[in-house]
Amino acid sequence: MTGTFITIEGPDGAGKTTAAADLRNRLTAMGVPCLLTREPGGSAIAEQIRSILLNPENTAMDPVTEAILYAAARRQHLMEVVRPALEAGMTVICDRFVDSSLAYQGHARGLGFDTVWSINEPAVQDLLPDLTILLDIEDEQALARIQARGQLDRFDLEGRDFRKQVREGFLAALRRFPGRIVRIDGSQTREQVTEAILRVCRDRHIL
Amino acid sequence: MTGTFITIEGPDGAGKTTAAADLRNRLTAMGVPCLLTREPGGSAIAEQIRSILLNPENTAMDPVTEAILYAAARRQHLMEVVRPALEAGMTVICDRFVDSSLAYQGHARGLGFDTVWSINEPAVQDLLPDLTILLDIEDEQALARIQARGQLDRFDLEGRDFRKQVREGFLAALRRFPGRIVRIDGSQTREQVTEAILRVCRDRHIL
Repeated sequence: MTGTFITIEGPDGAGKTTAAADLRNRLTAMGVPCLLTREPGGSAIAEQIRSILLNPENTAMDPVTEAILYAAARRQHLMEVVRPALEAGMTVICDRFVDSSLAYQGHARGLGFDTVWSINEPAVQDLLPDLTILLDIEDEQALARIQARGQLDRFDLEGRDFRKQVREGFLAALRRFPGRIVRIDGSQTREQVTEAILRVCRDRHIL
Repeated sequence: MTGTFITIEGPDGAGKTTAAADLRNRLTAMGVPCLLTREPGGSAIAEQIRSILLNPENTAMDPVTEAILYAAARRQHLMEVVRPALEAGMTVICDRFVDSSLAYQGHARGLGFDTVWSINEPAVQDLLPDLTILLDIEDEQALARIQARGQLDRFDLEGRDFRKQVREGFLAALRRFPGRIVRIDGSQTREQVTEAILRVCRDRHIL
């Protein structure tokens, strides 16, 4: 595996999608071959799994079933999209990965880190990210950004307590994996965030 | 949990479906409230998962993704169908369960018992069967029964080596869980099989 696997994590409204695209553009300009992807992206099977997860009629879904289905979509995306790109020597930037499951299902939904980790371990195996950027942000600012988007999804409609739990879940993941995850202040400007990410990449000699 | 959970396992053609129905009929006649079910049975969400697994266009499915999806369907069936019946004090008879994953995906498909078990553990948790009947049968006899059915499914079309691996996988599961799994000779007559199962139930004081 000659490529580098970078994941961008954080609560909704933290600026993940923008930061991931900006990072891709900067790396590409530097001549680094990049793949920008997001879960479940680029895999028909992973999309089929996602459609079960998002089907509003599936109100009877057990929380553990939900976590297992996310792990299945993750596995398929890893094997069809991420792994081949890493094997081809590319830098893969992925918008959300296993830490989102830890934060949302493990912490905010209350399944616990250990359960969610044990569900994801067989899916992820040795394909953990070389670096995970956690974009951290205060709830007020995150909410303002979410509302500015106009179109809200299922998770955007959750209340303040849920968003607080998600943020706490990401910070708990940071404490659990201090070597892999680096916290960056998501309240900074777009340019400052990108520079901060590039600095971390250089410090870790993955650029 | 006041009910009793019995699973019937074995290679295709071993007589599982017949034995499960006969057991249900005998128990019902004895006044034991019974639920006969099979995976993924009786759950809309589990059926949606199964349709991904059986979709012939999903040739790109990774073997681990497949095992994870079976575990997701299993979890949902357990929570929506099996667990409520057990809580209501019923005897639940389930045609196929986790040992089929061990035999098919773990052994015949080569993922290994440990991987398949670690995938299923979060799904099954404390809901392991009180008793698992393994209907064991020689390949020649199983094949004759499969062919007599007329309509073949995807697994029926696998070759002799695959069926041999599946049988070996079930026998390996028996060695792994000698307290839970009991082997019964599936080449006996239908009546002999039912009597043998009832004898095991009486010996184990679950009748």
